[in-house]
Formats: sequence, structure tokens, C-alpha cells
Amino acid sequence: MRFSPLIEQLMEAFRVLPGVGPKTAQRMALHLLEREREGGKRLAASIAQAIDEVGYCQRCRTLTEAPLCALCESPRRDDTLLCVVESPADQLAIEEAGGFSGRYFVLHGHLSPIDGIGPETIGLDLLEQRVAQGEVAEVVLATNPTVEGEATAHYIASQLGDYGVRFSRLAYGVPMGELEYVDGGTLSRAFNGRLPFSSD
Amino acid sequence: MRFSPLIEQLMEAFRVLPGVGPKTAQRMALHLLEREREGGKRLAASIAQAIDEVGYCQRCRTLTEAPLCALCESPRRDDTLLCVVESPADQLAIEEAGGFSGRYFVLHGHLSPIDGIGPETIGLDLLEQRVAQGEVAEVVLATNPTVEGEATAHYIASQLGDYGVRFSRLAYGVPMGELEYVDGGTLSRAFNGRLPFSSD
Ligand SMILES: [Zn+2]
Ligand SMILES: [Zn+2]
Repeated sequence: MRFSPLIEQLMEAFRVLPGVGPKTAQRMALHLLEREREGGKRLAASIAQAIDEVGYCQRCRTLTEAPLCALCESPRRDDTLLCVVESPADQLAIEEAGGFSGRYFVLHGHLSPIDGIGPETIGLDLLEQRVAQGEVAEVVLATNPTVEGEATAHYIASQLGDYGVRFSRLAYGVPMGELEYVDGGTLSRAFNGRLPFSSD
Repeated sequence: MRFSPLIEQLMEAFRVLPGVGPKTAQRMALHLLEREREGGKRLAASIAQAIDEVGYCQRCRTLTEAPLCALCESPRRDDTLLCVVESPADQLAIEEAGGFSGRYFVLHGHLSPIDGIGPETIGLDLLEQRVAQGEVAEVVLATNPTVEGEATAHYIASQLGDYGVRFSRLAYGVPMGELEYVDGGTLSRAFNGRLPFSSD
């Protein structure tokens, strides 16, 4: 016995979510159908609407349904500091750690020639335009402390080397892996202790 | 900083899924928007369609979009054995354990007067009609080995006491808790060793 075709299709569809295997997908599908049909309808509508309407901020490339995100619109941030992150989740982690008052730029990934992810895919042309405008004095390269993140930081520092901005990188203290899961204290300390960075 | 309103709404909507807290909901929402928009669209459509079309089998009350489920339609099952379970997940667990060749009846819960869940809510009128037709010789009361599951089993045995059917209950050997998570071997053994059951 398996479930009916529509239930099997729903279980399969849940597998698209991170960390969801067959058993969890089954539990999710049956939970919605048995106990949460109203909540399930809201979830379906919410997924469809977000996928349809959420795009990239025209200035920083973070995810938003507006032309500009709230952080880019805010008059209370320091335009001379620009923090480059790999993802909106990293951006949120830094904001929640507190202590950084500048602006952001979101790459949505890192350079990965083997996967066909080059400079334009991660928005480096837009980043260069931003720095070329002259307001930015320091670029904090907060890409992940991984091989790809380091390589991307070096590439950016090299690309923007002619604009007279300072580069910094999060201080050692952040563990290897995904920035998103680092606790706020560690992240905040690493931010305050950030180091000058050169492309060499 | 929080995310944009549509993203926040999506994170909130994911909380309807079992075991999904704020951090997991955030990861799911960002994962779909960053990397899985096509899969996300399929998931939204699949949830909406299943909620819209999946109802109860007219004969056994399991979840299905057809008037009768595949198990009720099957000519290869023994009509004299009827296994009563609390949920489609329990039904699947028993099927996957193997060894039972009869039919099922799905309660979608158990009696719980304090929550207003009475006999009709869990389909006991339909169950009585089924037994009254005279084909069923044994009713296996495979409700969960919990206080509510036991109480529901006793209620059913008492309600159907006049129809001359035998009642049995899964043998001890199943641990306390949710039947759905019991391993197949334990479940299969408990099934084979099922005991007569009376409403006293
Ligand atoms: Zn922005
Ligand atoms: Zn059926």
C-alpha cells in the first residue's frame, strides 16, 4: 500500500525543502491533510505569492518585493561602510549580532567557475558601480570563511583595488563553515576585530 | 532588520508544519526563494490541490481523492478481518510491517470528550453500519497504546458487542506512544500475537 496519487505527489513535493527526507515529508503531508487544512491553504498561497513577487533589491540585491529594501531605504545607516555577504541569512545574522551600522551588498552565492558562477552572476558589476560612486570608504568582505568565500573576497578586493577604498575581513574567531549558524557574540566580536584585507 | 513583509509572512506560514520552529521556517523560506523557485511553485500547487481534492474514502475513511481508496477497491483482501486504526499513518505502518490481509477502518483520532470529539466525529456510525452488514468476523482494535486509544477501543467493543464479531487488540510488545513510529518487526509480531479483547 502507498497513499493515493495526490498524497504521494504532495510528499514528493515536500522533499524540495532543506532537511526533509521521506519520513518527514510523509508527516508534513498527513499533518496538513488531517489537522491543518486552513494553515495549509495559507502556506500554499504564501509560497506562490512570495515566489511570484519577491525579487532582488535594486541597490543591495537582498530579497525583497519592493524596488528597494528597508535597509537601503533607511536614512540611519552609514553610507561609507559596505558589508558584502553571500546570502540574506548571513546579512540577518550580522544584523542580529548588532554593532554594524553600515550598508550591505548580497552576492547570493560565491564565485564557482566549475558551476558556471562568475562575477556577473553574483552581481559584482553592480557592486563595482556602487563603489565607483565614491561614497563607500570601507568594504567589509564578510563572505563565508570557506575556500570559496576566501577566493571570492580576494577577487572582489582585486577587482575594486583602483577605487581607493579600504578592505577588511571578519577577524579570526569565526569558525569554519556557514556564517549563518555562528552565534551572535562570536560574530559581533569578529566584526569589531575585523582586519585590513588586501588582494595579494 | 527583519525580512520583507512577504518573506516574513512565508516564514510564519511554514510554522504550520510539524516540528518547524522559527529557525527552520527561515531556512525553508530562504531556500525556496534563493535556490528552488520551480520546486517551490510545484509545492504550492501540490498543497493547494491536495487540500482541495483529498477527502475520506466512503468505505474506510482513509485519505483519498477517489470515492473509494485502493485498499477498499482491492479484490485480494479478506473481508472478514477489519482493522481499526487512528490514522492513515498507522494504517501505512501496519501495511509495511506485512502479515495483515484484511480491510481497514480509519478513525482520524480517538474519543476525547474534553475536546468535543465524540463517536460520530471519529466515524463510529459508519463503522457500525459496516459491521452490521455481517461480513466482518473479527475487528482488530489497533488504536494507539495510550490512555485515549485504550478508551476508544473499549468504547468500540462495547458499541459493537451485539453483532457477534470477535474483538482483538495488538499484543503487548508495542511500546507506549505513537504506533506510527514502531518498527515493522515489533508491529508484525504484535499483530500475529493479537489477543481477544472484551469491553469489560
Ligand atoms: Zn537593499
Ligand atoms: Zn477505503
